[in-house]
Parts: sequence; structure tokens; C-alpha cells
Amino acid sequence: MNFYSKKNPLLTKEKVKSRYQDTEAIGVFNPAATQFEDETVLLVRIAERVKENGGRVGVPMIEKGAYVVKYFSPSDPNYDFSDARVVKGKNGKYLTSMSYLAVARSKDGENFILDENCGIFPETEYEAYGVEDARISVIDGKYYITYTAVSDLGICVALATTKDFKTFEKKGVLLTPDNKDVAFFPEKMGGKYYMLHRPSTSEFGKPEAWLAQSSDMLEWGRHVRVLGVRKDRWDSERLGVCSAPIKTEDGWLTLYHGADKNNRYCVGAILLDRNDPSKVLKRSAKPFLEPINDYEQNGFFGGVVFPCGAVKNGDSLWIYYGAADDKVCLVKTPIKDILDTLV
Amino acid sequence: MNFYSKKNPLLTKEKVKSRYQDTEAIGVFNPAATQFEDETVLLVRIAERVKENGGRVGVPMIEKGAYVVKYFSPSDPNYDFSDARVVKGKNGKYLTSMSYLAVARSKDGENFILDENCGIFPETEYEAYGVEDARISVIDGKYYITYTAVSDLGICVALATTKDFKTFEKKGVLLTPDNKDVAFFPEKMGGKYYMLHRPSTSEFGKPEAWLAQSSDMLEWGRHVRVLGVRKDRWDSERLGVCSAPIKTEDGWLTLYHGADKNNRYCVGAILLDRNDPSKVLKRSAKPFLEPINDYEQNGFFGGVVFPCGAVKNGDSLWIYYGAADDKVCLVKTPIKDILDTLV
Repeated sequence: MNFYSKKNPLLTKEKVKSRYQDTEAIGVFNPAATQFEDETVLLVRIAERVKENGGRVGVPMIEKGAYVVKYFSPSDPNYDFSDARVVKGKNGKYLTSMSYLAVARSKDGENFILDENCGIFPETEYEAYGVEDARISVIDGKYYITYTAVSDLGICVALATTKDFKTFEKKGVLLTPDNKDVAFFPEKMGGKYYMLHRPSTSEFGKPEAWLAQSSDMLEWGRHVRVLGVRKDRWDSERLGVCSAPIKTEDGWLTLYHGADKNNRYCVGAILLDRNDPSKVLKRSAKPFLEPINDYEQNGFFGGVVFPCGAVKNGDSLWIYYGAADDKVCLVKTPIKDILDTLV
Repeated sequence: MNFYSKKNPLLTKEKVKSRYQDTEAIGVFNPAATQFEDETVLLVRIAERVKENGGRVGVPMIEKGAYVVKYFSPSDPNYDFSDARVVKGKNGKYLTSMSYLAVARSKDGENFILDENCGIFPETEYEAYGVEDARISVIDGKYYITYTAVSDLGICVALATTKDFKTFEKKGVLLTPDNKDVAFFPEKMGGKYYMLHRPSTSEFGKPEAWLAQSSDMLEWGRHVRVLGVRKDRWDSERLGVCSAPIKTEDGWLTLYHGADKNNRYCVGAILLDRNDPSKVLKRSAKPFLEPINDYEQNGFFGGVVFPCGAVKNGDSLWIYYGAADDKVCLVKTPIKDILDTLV
């Protein structure tokens, strides 16, 4: 049983003060979440686009550390503008929006105050087109933030750490492009740290979840594929881990999103062996969370529920998710009910 | 000045005894090379396809550790057979050939004896569609072989080690897919091992060379892009490292292949800082090796020179390369002449 917050949507683009010059927020979504001291802290993705300006198409990006806008004429035959989200040229494509990660805080987990000036912002050449979709992993009381860094060098996973959610230390590129959807396990097994990650391949295969090991959380190896897509089901086209695995008596409970051929995003779970997380013990036959509410079906991209964080609260998980790619929402789901979907 | 071996091509498909049932070799190419004891040892890629069989299209692959052939009817509307190298379906594609890596030995570096039963063969689920294009790196007298493992899980880089080039120990997947063209530096710098690698991205960017660091050669991190493509030049579309960097007084001399829009593959070089190999000090304005000889222009895929190994021999490099994607050739090039192409 899913108990949707009565405050949904918790955050919407109307509440965002745009960060860059002449931009407007088109979405606040895909929140990473954790408990920090007496607050629930989210790292939300805010996407901004350049405001309409004389019919030109503006592409916001970072160049040599500074925010710039590259303008295109919609009649330029060298570029394809048919998808409003991108500008496609023969030598590559650009995004018409740029995202950053901002902190939102709450005492009760439902009423959040957004601070657009605190977070992780695109700065490096690996982040030139924005930073997106963070996950927060807590290991030995330290906070590790894995996030997507997008640029013409590819879609990378980068790492940052924080002690206070006020300042963040960037640690560079963690995995080779293209990769996304990375979360660390909260404790070592057999002397090694573990992560789940989601490479996107260029020729063979589909985006699926892999496991890797590390001695220091900066260098990763021993990659194995652990969770594949399932033909003709809700997770047939791609999948990725939502948030850090949660230890239960039966194994590591790990939420994941899956998308089908219609790009409908739902959420299910797996149970991984407590000592050997490459073993999938159980898996949701059906998703436990689907885009059914109005705020999930309508928005920037409808039919999407996309959690990037879950906070344990008693016997329930408070799952923070992006709805329709433009809002932050919350659903409270008893852990038992999630376990019951596993077969 | 390039001195082509008078024995070119050193190895051709006609010399190969096919390994699998009812298959024929369609190429022996892209040789890794090293000096081992008193011999030059190559690890050549041999591609085999299923012989013509009643008009069906045979796809050779490994399933549960065993060699199998999946047959398709060329009239099956669910698949596209227009490119003879692949079978494309809506849920993925297959290769109509499967490659493995075989050892060839020579006392003089020009006359090679091929042993199709000694080498690295596809076995695991990551190698289901074959293993390709090895590089050999020598560190502290040990031999590290990085090779491409292809399957429906993506294009991975795998590692194997050997002490004798008779038996090989597989060490699993080194980097997340898609990646290729990996070679290790022959010594540590600042306490770390280094590699060059070549991720292929799915949405943004082009295949370019990156640098990574490791403490143990199994876990890798601190990824930075070091060498990008150059618009409208011989290396405009993709590039990758040919072989392990060679220490010179001026820096790490590293050969790389580049391809242009016509998929013409040429070879140039870079010089990397001896202490900080993320710094490219110099780069070939023009390639020093181009597909000009008949055996490079005609073959399975003409217009390709593709080295995977270079052995220092006095003041020259003996560069072993795949010609037109089906033969093994050798060119002897004075190191000074390569350095002279750098600007």
C-alpha cells in the first residue's frame, strides 16, 4: 500500500528562483534524499532553460568554468530543432536546458525549504551540459553523492562528498562514460566497498544494472552485470538503481526504476544476498509504484515516477521521487509491502 | 620513413586452421605484440564465420560456455540482413563472425608460426560474441593482456595475465561498457599504475582516449579525457591507443589510430608528460602510417592500418598491424621519424 503525501507535489518549478541570467526553471525533480541531523535533506535536480529571446534557440552551458549561452537560429539547416529538448548537429547534440543540484531541507520530511544557492553546480568540462540525478550514500557517517555529469565528453558518473550539506567537495569522474544511476552500499563486505551502476552501451545490449567493487571508493573494478531487462514487461527497455541498498534480515533491499517501450517509468525492487550482492535473490514481478496520479501523468514528460532517494522511517520507506520529470513528490510505503512484491 | 617488411602480409586467413565446427577464418589481424624470451610473440585476432549452409545465416556464439550457432532465415522480416557483418533485430544485434585471440611466435620477428590452439578464447557471458583486439603491457616482467569482450551485455575491456604465453589467466571485466583500446603504462608514476582507454558514448561525444589510475590494476578511477578527435582531420571521428606507451627522454611516446568520416584508419602519435601523463606535450599533425599498400587498401575492409603492438628494436619500432581488417603486417619505423611528426 502506497501512502502518498498530502503535500504532493512537495516542490514545483514555480517555487524556484532561477539561478542563471535570463533563464527559467522548467522542472525540479529526481531528488536524492537522506536524514541529516534532525532534518530530511534532498538534493533536487533543477533544470533551467533560456527564456524566449527573439526567436533564437538558446543552449545554456558551462565554458571554461563560466555560464554561457550558445544561440542558434531555428532556420539554420545544419541543425535539427524538431525535439525541443535538444539541438542536433552533424557533429553532436546540445541540451536546451541545463540542470544543477540544489539542497532542500525539512524538519518533518514533507514541508521543504529550497536553497537554490546551496548544492552542486556545473563547473568542469565534464559538467558542461549540467549535473543531474544524484544519489546519497552514507558510509561510516560520511555522505557520498554520486551524480550524472553531462558534456560533449559523454554522460559520466561523478562523486562529491559533504559533511554538512553546505559545502561539497568534488572528487572527479568515477566511471567511464556512459554511465548513470550509481549508489554505494552502506557498508563494506569482505573488506570491499560496493556500488551498483548503470552503463549505457552504444551498440549491443540495453541499459542494465552492474555491480563493482572498490578499496577506496575512487577506483572501481570487478564489474559484473547483476540485473537485466525483462522482455515485454514493465522493465523491458532500461533500468537503474533508485537509491542506496537497505539492509534487511533477508538481504539488501534495493529499489530500481524500469522503463518499457512507451518510456513509462515504474519502480520495483530486488533483494540481493547480504554477503554476495552479485546474487539477486528475489525481484518484483510487478512494480510497487506506478505513475497513476495526475501529477505523475501530466508534466514535462508524463508517465514517470523516478525516485533518487528513500529514507527509512519506522517500518516504512519514505520514497522521494521525480513526478513527470518536473516535480518532487513523496510516497510512504511499508517495507513489508515492498518485500511482498518480490518473488 | 617506413620500412615495410618484405614478408608482408606476415599472416593471412589462408594460413588459419578454423577452430570451430563448420567455420572458416575470414581474417587474421590486429596483432598485439611483445618480446618474450628469445621470441617475438603476437596475439592475433582471428575472425571466423559459419560456412554457407542451405541459405541460412549462421551466427556463431558462446552460450553457457559452449560454442553454438544460431541460424536465421534471410527472409525473416523481424531481422535486417543488409550488412553481411551483422544481423539486426528490434531487440538487439548479432555478429555473423566470432573472434578469438591466438598466439603466433617468431625468432626473427618476421616469420611467424601461428598456434590456433593457444590463446584467449571466448568463454564467459561477457565474451559471448567473441574476444578482439588485444594489447600486451609489460610491468615488472609480468605480462598483462587487455582485450575487447563483446556480448549482448556490451563491449567490455577484459584483463588476462600470462607468464609464458601458453596459459592465460582471465581476470574479468576491467572497465564498464562500452570501452576498447586499453594499454597500461609500463611503470608506476607517483605510486599509481596508469592506463589509457577509449570509451564509446551513446549520446554525446565521440570515441576518444582517456586516462585512468589504479593501485592494483584491477580497480581503476580518476578518469580524465586526454586526447580528443580533431574536426576535419584524419582523426576526426574516433581514435584509440595502439599499444603500451614507450618511455623516451622527451616523454611517453604513444601510438594511436584515428579514423575519418570515410572510416579510413591511419596511425599517429602523441608525447605525454613523463610524470603527469594527463598532459599531451606533442601530437602528430599528420599520420606517419597510412593505408597505401595494396594489402592495406584491399581486403575485408579496405583503407585500414590498425596496430595493436609495437616492439622496440634498436632505434626503431617494429609495428605490427592489421591491414584491411584481414591480414597481419609489419612496418619498421625509426623512433626519430615518429618523433619528427610531432608538433
